[in-house]
Parts: sequence; C-alpha cells; structure tokens
Amino acid sequence: MNNYVIGLDYGSDSARAVVVDASDGKVLATSVKYYPRWKEGKYCDPGENRYRQHPLDYIEVLEQSVKEALSQLPAEVAANVKGIAFDTTGSTPAFTDENGVPLALKPEFAENPNAMFVLWKDHTAVKEADEINKLCKRWEVDYSAYEGGIYSSEWFWAKVLHILREDEQVRNAAYSVVEHCEWLPALLTGVNRSSDIVRSRCAEGHKAMWHAKWGGLPEEKFLVELDPLLGGLRDRLFEVTETADKPVGKLTQEWADRLGLTTDVVVAGGAFDCHMGAVGAGVVPHTLVRIIGTSTCDVMVADYDEIGSNLIRGICGQVDGSVIPGMVGLEAGQSAFGDVYAWFRRILEYPLRKLAAGVLSDEQVEQMCDKIIPALTEDAEKIPVSESGVVAVDWMNGRRTPDADQRLKGAITGITLGTTAPMIFKALVEATAFGSRAIMERFIDEGVKIDTVIGIGGIALKSPFVMQTLSDVMNVPIKVCRTDQACALGAAMFAATAAGLFGRVEDAQKSMSSGFAKTYFPDSDRAAEYNAIYEKYKKLGRFCELSVHEA
Amino acid sequence: MNNYVIGLDYGSDSARAVVVDASDGKVLATSVKYYPRWKEGKYCDPGENRYRQHPLDYIEVLEQSVKEALSQLPAEVAANVKGIAFDTTGSTPAFTDENGVPLALKPEFAENPNAMFVLWKDHTAVKEADEINKLCKRWEVDYSAYEGGIYSSEWFWAKVLHILREDEQVRNAAYSVVEHCEWLPALLTGVNRSSDIVRSRCAEGHKAMWHAKWGGLPEEKFLVELDPLLGGLRDRLFEVTETADKPVGKLTQEWADRLGLTTDVVVAGGAFDCHMGAVGAGVVPHTLVRIIGTSTCDVMVADYDEIGSNLIRGICGQVDGSVIPGMVGLEAGQSAFGDVYAWFRRILEYPLRKLAAGVLSDEQVEQMCDKIIPALTEDAEKIPVSESGVVAVDWMNGRRTPDADQRLKGAITGITLGTTAPMIFKALVEATAFGSRAIMERFIDEGVKIDTVIGIGGIALKSPFVMQTLSDVMNVPIKVCRTDQACALGAAMFAATAAGLFGRVEDAQKSMSSGFAKTYFPDSDRAAEYNAIYEKYKKLGRFCELSVHEA
Repeated sequence: MNNYVIGLDYGSDSARAVVVDASDGKVLATSVKYYPRWKEGKYCDPGENRYRQHPLDYIEVLEQSVKEALSQLPAEVAANVKGIAFDTTGSTPAFTDENGVPLALKPEFAENPNAMFVLWKDHTAVKEADEINKLCKRWEVDYSAYEGGIYSSEWFWAKVLHILREDEQVRNAAYSVVEHCEWLPALLTGVNRSSDIVRSRCAEGHKAMWHAKWGGLPEEKFLVELDPLLGGLRDRLFEVTETADKPVGKLTQEWADRLGLTTDVVVAGGAFDCHMGAVGAGVVPHTLVRIIGTSTCDVMVADYDEIGSNLIRGICGQVDGSVIPGMVGLEAGQSAFGDVYAWFRRILEYPLRKLAAGVLSDEQVEQMCDKIIPALTEDAEKIPVSESGVVAVDWMNGRRTPDADQRLKGAITGITLGTTAPMIFKALVEATAFGSRAIMERFIDEGVKIDTVIGIGGIALKSPFVMQTLSDVMNVPIKVCRTDQACALGAAMFAATAAGLFGRVEDAQKSMSSGFAKTYFPDSDRAAEYNAIYEKYKKLGRFCELSVHEA
Repeated sequence: MNNYVIGLDYGSDSARAVVVDASDGKVLATSVKYYPRWKEGKYCDPGENRYRQHPLDYIEVLEQSVKEALSQLPAEVAANVKGIAFDTTGSTPAFTDENGVPLALKPEFAENPNAMFVLWKDHTAVKEADEINKLCKRWEVDYSAYEGGIYSSEWFWAKVLHILREDEQVRNAAYSVVEHCEWLPALLTGVNRSSDIVRSRCAEGHKAMWHAKWGGLPEEKFLVELDPLLGGLRDRLFEVTETADKPVGKLTQEWADRLGLTTDVVVAGGAFDCHMGAVGAGVVPHTLVRIIGTSTCDVMVADYDEIGSNLIRGICGQVDGSVIPGMVGLEAGQSAFGDVYAWFRRILEYPLRKLAAGVLSDEQVEQMCDKIIPALTEDAEKIPVSESGVVAVDWMNGRRTPDADQRLKGAITGITLGTTAPMIFKALVEATAFGSRAIMERFIDEGVKIDTVIGIGGIALKSPFVMQTLSDVMNVPIKVCRTDQACALGAAMFAATAAGLFGRVEDAQKSMSSGFAKTYFPDSDRAAEYNAIYEKYKKLGRFCELSVHEA
C-alpha cells in the first residue's frame, strides 16, 4: 500500500494541486484553478498598485483543484493521502476577528478590499514602509536587520498600518492578522480562535520582523511609536512561530468531506512559495536555488556552523528554519528578470500596437507580438560575446539585492548606429545575468559558499539562451529541475514530513526529488570574456547609483 | 533687363541646379539629377566603407540639370545668366594627370575606383589618418591645429596616401590631386594644366592642412616623413588658395554650348556645400547656421577683430575666408542627428521586418515603417519635460564636436519598466539637442558670441517637435530659412558676386536672401527644466568618455 501526499501551491493568479506518491515523489495528478474574483479584476486598482484577494477565491480553488486532481486517480489514492501542505505568496496578510476568520468572510465586510488578503505586490503602503525604515534606523534595535535592513511596502507591518489608518470600519473589527500561508492550514484543521493559529516561521521571520534574538515581534513601544493605532495588536498576534515540517493538525470532518479525503490527513505548516520551491528543487547547503520568472527569488540554506551569528549584508532575509528546519534560510532576488525582456518586447511592440489598425487584425498583432522574444533570442544567439559592445544594467524595476534600492533605474550603453534590436536584447539578457552574478558574489563575499546553482521557474525551463548566458556569466554549472512544479512538489515534501513519512525534510527531499532535466555548463572562453564585461557592468552600475544619489 | 545666376549644389547622391534672379534671390527654376553610376552602387563597397564617384556622373548631371532648369524658363533667361557657381561635398579628392584631368576620365582608368573621386564619407584611410595624427602631435608644427587638432580619415591627405600605397598603377600615373569643388570650375573654364586649377580656400584650408601661417601646405619634410611615397607631390599641388567669390574664368565655347549659356558667364570658385549653405541661409557674425539632417554641420563667421589669432578649441575647422571672404570661417558639427532617430526607428522596425512575412506585403511593411517617426513624434510631444526621467547621450556615431572622438558611443539611462518607446524617442531628441547646446557653449566659451541660430536642412523644415526642443534646450530663438535650397542659393550668391553683380558676398546675401519661414522661441519653463537635465547629460557624457578611455 502506497502513501500519498498533496501539495498545494498558491500563486498570484491561480492555485495548483499535485497528488504525489510519497515513496518516489512521482506527481500522479495535477490541477490548476484560477482565482475567479481576481480573474475578473475585482477589488484591485492597478493604477494605485492596489491588489487584494478574496478569501473565498482561495477556498473555492482549493476544493476544485484537490477534487479535480483526485478524480484523475483510483479511489484508493484519496483513501491513502497522508498529508497536505500549502505554500502561498507572501507577505499576503489579512485582518481577522477573534476567531481567526478573515474579515471579508463576514457579511458586513464581504465587499471591502481592506478586509481581504493584501497580495504581496500591493504597493499602497509605501508611506508606511518609509516610516518603518526611519524608525528602525533610529531605534536601539534595527528590527529590519534580518530582512535586509530595508523594510518594504510589500510587507506585513506596512500593510497592516496602512489599512488601520485608512479604514475605520476594519480598524474597529480587526482583532488580529493572518498570513495567507497560515490561514489555510488553520482553516482545514478547524482552528476557531485567532490565538490558536500556528504561525509560519518563514512568513513572520521574513516579513514581520519576528526574530528570536529580540523575543519575537518588535516590542510594543516600537510599534506604538510607529503609530498608536498599533497599540495592543502585538499581544493579540503571537509569540511563537513554527517551521513548516510540523503538523498543525488533521483535517476536520467537514474538510475531509469537502475534499474527498479522510480525517487522518495531517496538515503541515505553511510557508512561502519560493521557500518550499527551493526545497522541492533540492536545496542543500552551498546550493543556490533560483526561481527565475518575471523577477527572481534566490534561496539558500546554511548550517549554523557555517553562518554562526553572521548577518549577511544586503540580502532580503535571513531566518532560522524558514526553508529547512535546523538551518538558516537565506533569501535574495532580482526585482526584474524576465520583466526586463518583457519591457524590451513592449518597446518593440510599439509600431505593431500603434500603426496596425486597418492593416492587421488584433489577433495578428498578438501573434506577431508573441513571436518577438523568440525571434530576438534566435538572432541574439548568433552574436558572439563582446562583439556588439552594448552593456546594460538590469535595474528597470529597482534593485532588490544585493543592497536594496528601489530608486535605481536601468541603462543601456555602448550604442552605435549599427546596434540592432538583437544586440540590445543580448545585452539585456547579459545584464540580468550580471545581476545574478552580483547576488552570488555577495553570498560568497559574506562567507556563504556556493558550489551548485539550480534553476526553476518559467525562464529556467523555457529559455536555453538565457540559461546558457547565465551559466557563462556566473561561471558555474546550472542545473534545471525536471519538474515544472517545484513549489507544489516542495509542499508535498513538507506534507510527507509532517505526516511522519519522513523524519526530516532532507529525507523527503532525497526520496521525492524530481531530478534534473538538464545542466548548463559554462564555456570557459565566454566566461573569460564575460569577466571583462562584468567589470563594465559594475562601473555602469556605480554611475547609475551616483545619478540617483546625487539627484 | 534682369540678371540671372545659376547655383549648383552637388550632394552625396544628386546634384541640384537652381536658376536665380540676382536682383531678389527668387529661385525661378530647379532641377535635381541623381548620379547614374552611383545610383547603381558602382565602384562602392559599403562593407569596406569605400565610396567612390565617377567624374562622368558629375558631368552628366551638370548638363542635365542646368538644361532642364533653363528649359522651364523663357530663352532670355539663359541669355542673361551672368554667373555660375558650385558647391560640393568634401573632402572629395581625385588624382589628376598633369593636365588636371581626373584619372578616371582616361580610358585605362575608366573602371578603377582609385582613379575616381573619393567621396567625403569613404573611410578606407583610417590607418593613414592615424599616422597623420601621430606625426602631427610629435612634429614641431601641429598642422592639424586649424582643423580641430584631429585629422580624419575622411580628409585629403589620408585618402591620397591610402591610394598611393594601395594602387601602383594610379601611383605611377598620378601627377596632382583635385577636390571636387575645384575641378568643376576648372573644367568649365577650360583649364588644361593642373597648375592652373584655382584652389579652394574652403576645401584646402579645412581638409588639406593648408594655412597661411606655415606657408600653405605642410612642409615637404613632414610629408616625406609620413611616407616617402608623398615625396614631390607638394610641389605639384599648389601654394595659393582662393576664396569662392573670385571668378576663376568664363565658360568655354564648348561648355556654353553644352549648357545652353553664353561665353560671358563667369564661373566662381568652388566651396563645400555647408559653407555656401551658411551664406545662403544668411550667416553673419554672431549667427550660428546649422545644417540639420542625418548629421549637422554648424557654421559661423567671425570678424578678425573678434577672433584675432585665437584658436577655437575642439571644433572641426577655422579657416580665413572659407565661408565669407574677409572673415574667419568656423565649422563644427554633430556626427549624428537625424541618424540617431533613424537608428531608433530601425530598432522598432525589427518585428515588422522580421515577423511580417506572409502577414504583410513589402509595401505595407514600408508604409508602417515610414509612420514610426511621425507616430513617435506625436506621442513624444505629449510627454512633459522631466516626466520620464530618461536621459540619453547622442554619440551613436561618435562625436565630431566639441572635441572630436569617434570612439565614443551612445547611451540611454533612467529606464524603468514603465519607459515607453515615445519616452525613449523624446530622450533621443533631447540628446541631439544637448549635443547642439554643447557646440554652442564651446563657441561662447572660446569668446565667439552667438545671438542668433538659423536652421536649414531636412529636419529644420520638417520637424517642429525637434526644432522646438532644440530651441528650449539651447534657450535661443531658432529661425528656419524659407528656402529648402539654401546651399544652391548660397552658390548663386557666389556666382552673382564673382560675376560682379555685387561688390561683396554680404551684399549678395542682403539682396538675395530667402528670409525665414518660422522662428521657434524657447519656453522659459522648459528651458529651466532642460538646464537641469543638461547637467545629467554632461555627467553621463563624462561616464561614456571614461568608459572608452579606460578600455
């Protein structure tokens, strides 16, 4: 009799359920469901960078995706599912009542965006983040220290404060706050008191300034200094956080029925998608796992022996147990990666979108637009390194790491009248690779060895040109996971560990890994050429930094 | 009875003849003829930057254009043409025999590109220019001093030396060298000895290092040190040069017959197109005339009292009488202006040219491509100054002035994911305007006052957006000539002066000017904003200079 587990990966637009054989990690069935209200654009205002998601969206896709995935398999599979785990985006918090129910699930708040989950990319709290940063710098303890030293408007406290200030109705009803990845396990295990919600080490350690060193969340005095509106909230939140390998409970009868599972199913703790994705991809010490899409999330784990009490300068976060329990989780990333290529595509789309009326149908325009990046790729591949002389910097969306600075901007230099669109594209690909190298070098400079790089995510699987350039520029082999569902697979590994099928997450990794589809090896000649161009990238980067800082 | 004159403007691809009433400068008839062999691409190799023009092309279009222009007018006009003058591109030299005949007119050289005129933009002599520059810097006299201190591969001695080295047959037959603008007057006046050719102050002073200060051409010792192959050539060239207002003779019977004119027609000296264009546009002291097209040529005249013996740093050339006799002619320019916009258009054309097969006809592609710059212009005009934050440098074709450096390259900075194609276009237009301002400021820094700017050329007439930006950035009013044929009109003014219809070129200017079609006035708010952006342009420029110099 086999044991099965379910991993659920909640992305920005959809959730994906995988049913996995816990003995070998084989994904037996998959189902993807899009958030229905979100898909209609409800509760959002892109012009204001306001992005909210209704908890009902999460509930509906949970039921649909799990049932659809199970429906593809023999009934005995459902009967032998032993664990379930969730990864989600984050920081994606929502206000709850005293029972731990997100306010938007209550009739009076059903249509209030401030009562919903505030998606990671919501930027309405820029002002509040700024205040938090200023206070951190002048406070005795810099609570942002383990989160890269710069608190973001995308994170817990900024969002909480912003809504408390903005919405009196929510303020009066709000008892506590829950992160998306904490709420789903609580929901399925029948938690009915806010104080009983198991808190995610990953979410709270990376985004809510929770750290054991200062006894958990920032002290009450700090929060009240930030704004008296925060007074009392700290006591209603939590003191303890848990790693995601720990069970938070078992399915309630109601949820077992709704999902077609048994009440023996163990529900694991929640964590962020990239962190479980790193586990799914096979992260171990000295391995950098990169989730490469529109932006990148770069995750490592380090042994206590290696990292000791060191604070890694200029990365996004450093949290004990956020990735694998018993090791320090390290997070970095690039603010834009595929988005840089998408930007250039939009530039080149200009004549098609502007001048095609009456000549091309909308469908023809879309078809041609979709071919731009493949065509650029094909042409750019033929250009020898160093030939064009074009050097770019990849900070079109600011710089997340190393050394966050969202004010920075991108640049393209070395342009001649002979510079072609594929040359610029090649330079942009190189720029994103240089940005990757800068992150890797920062880890190494800070004493964290890297001997392997693993790529997952859309670009890792789809663009050999980008991945080969990345390998040449970083001068390391880069492995690409066989699975295109590393995050959901990682969740399945946590489900299996929480259910007791493995003693440790590392054991689950060993048994359940998908293996690698391909390894890109650096070409030594190109790597040497890129060493020289990387120096130019760094010089251009310093100029871009000065331009902003002097302005 | 009216007096008429003919101005002939020989451009890169075609010649244009205008028949002008000398009393008021009214252009009565125009004819444009393209060089037939050149149009077929003969004798050229763009891949090698080799551009040669056959003297028969020049002769054929002369006859065709003059006769066609006259055919549009009553016979009495032809009978009363009093003068004819030529402006041409330059430096565009050809080797001649002892009789002053370009070698390509001899049967044995009829198909030899090295025996033809070497068009200004021919870059085959890069190595020779380099040697000339090195020798100038270590010689007692820097013969390049009045030509901006950097000798170009586009100029007389580099081209002469390159061909002498490369072609033994030409070397053995070559007696002397003639510039295009000198040869046509000599041809029409029946000169049959090389030594009788009247030499152009403009051509030789700007391109052959001729200067009265050191007794004409560079000394024999210098030339032989450069290459013994040059030995003896100096004595066979010339000592004296003349300004273009002086008659070089009258039409021979043969040429009077061929052109349908009388033997009373005075032929004026020749000069370069932009210099006669500046006269045609109304250049006077303190007025900067800009011929604005793919690149710019910026021309001024200065009184001896104002400029004395000063050497203006970093411009292209400074030659007594090269523009208006009795004043110092000053030349500067931007290596790329409209070419910068054309470059961006080519970038945006990529999807249309690459992906339209089977969707759009070639004609539809061309039509869409032709609309790109108008569309960008329309959208860019709506973007407020300073809004996009994009700052570019315009050195996509190197920098001609101030301070020539052909190695420099262009750059675009301040890019975000929200940067659009029109924002980049606007920044490129601003960059070309900043390049213009840098030239103006150099003149002013060197003690040459500027109180008026006049624009002629394609862009001046066709792009109000570019011209308004130029006025705002330079913070001066810019007048645009009514005529679109300022060069040919300038030639007509020289024809009239040489024919004795006016005592001085300035008198011809006063009577024959076309006046101005429009004046662009700077907006004080935008000018103030551009002051700040100009500082960013200069900083980015210094970074681009460092990038090249450190490499």
